[in-house]
Amino acid sequence: GKLPFCAMGVSSVIHPKNPHVPTMHFNYRYFEIEEADGNKQWWFGGGTDLTPTYLNEEDAVHFHKTLKEACDKHDLKFYPKYKKWCDDYFYIKHRGERRGIGGIFFDDMDSPSKEEVFQFVKSCAKAVVPCYVPIVKRHCHDSFTPEEKLWQQLRRGRYVEFNLIYDRGTKFGLLTPGSRIESILMSLPLTARWEYMHTPPKSSREAEILEVLRNPRDWVH
Amino acid sequence: GKLPFCAMGVSSVIHPKNPHVPTMHFNYRYFEIEEADGNKQWWFGGGTDLTPTYLNEEDAVHFHKTLKEACDKHDLKFYPKYKKWCDDYFYIKHRGERRGIGGIFFDDMDSPSKEEVFQFVKSCAKAVVPCYVPIVKRHCHDSFTPEEKLWQQLRRGRYVEFNLIYDRGTKFGLLTPGSRIESILMSLPLTARWEYMHTPPKSSREAEILEVLRNPRDWVH
Repeated sequence: GKLPFCAMGVSSVIHPKNPHVPTMHFNYRYFEIEEADGNKQWWFGGGTDLTPTYLNEEDAVHFHKTLKEACDKHDLKFYPKYKKWCDDYFYIKHRGERRGIGGIFFDDMDSPSKEEVFQFVKSCAKAVVPCYVPIVKRHCHDSFTPEEKLWQQLRRGRYVEFNLIYDRGTKFGLLTPGSRIESILMSLPLTARWEYMHTPPKSSREAEILEVLRNPRDWVH
Repeated sequence: GKLPFCAMGVSSVIHPKNPHVPTMHFNYRYFEIEEADGNKQWWFGGGTDLTPTYLNEEDAVHFHKTLKEACDKHDLKFYPKYKKWCDDYFYIKHRGERRGIGGIFFDDMDSPSKEEVFQFVKSCAKAVVPCYVPIVKRHCHDSFTPEEKLWQQLRRGRYVEFNLIYDRGTKFGLLTPGSRIESILMSLPLTARWEYMHTPPKSSREAEILEVLRNPRDWVH
């Protein structure tokens, strides 16, 4: 049967040209449904996460620390819970890798009150710029080699795999009749690459980021 | 419970550099399962299909005609049935487009006899080279512009979308524990591209192939 609902959200994905500037994604959303008995349900969801081509520990710590500060203002349990949820959500099962170095992710948040959850979501949204922009400024003039660009392109291939195979927003979006395809697929990078059996050499910077994607770290305590 | 089975197949995908040489894919496979009561089931499946960046009617007719001849030796009903099955199978629902200009596709073929189905599958497999190689020879020295290469890359993006979202072999392969990821994802192109709201100009060669992907044609009668 019909179920009246109202959904709104804001999403953004930035795939920089320079492989030393990480990809960043955030989404914050609000849902409201009216059940058959007239009862209204509402919830918030969202998150912010970072996908670097190469690991920069200082950047990773800055990113997570900024998110943790935004969470801690509301509840000290939020950051650890939503950091783990993020690592679990952005998991590319067939690769045994996460899409990136995480951040925060949450869904179905409907307590303690609409106003309090909204305040929390606003804090998260306000943290997007201080999370990411300092990292962009630090690296946007870094020089890079063709090999670094190639590794970025292979990582973008993994980003495409996650988004098309696992991402709920993409999957349900594409299955929704009359959905706006171009809005849903705007998360894909401009270009991506796949190579058969590509394995970076041991102890390389490429192997270093892979290790973190396979075994997520705690960046702040 | 456990179900003893035996599966074998051969797959190949060729993604040429030159945008005037189409992508070709074929797969032929054989399955055998032993049911709980000891009863053995077997079936064949497979197909061959073409994905051009630009439409060349002569190539399309040659490709389909060669497949039709291979089918007609066994049963005049095969080509029309498996041509349609191919158009239906390689459908990118969210785009309203097929992956390419089709070919043949069939599955669960278990009659009239194992030997007869095997003879048919062998005819199909033997048709792969005469289907495709003359097209490669005709175009592999064609010159191309950066714009043509770009359109090829956008089409490869659609190929990735089909394979990751809809293709059964990919989907079930990735879900199978212990499957060999690199073999499953070898169907992906080396490189692909996505652009927001890309729409080719009316009456362009890009619009021409899109029209055929939206409304499959009969190439041989």
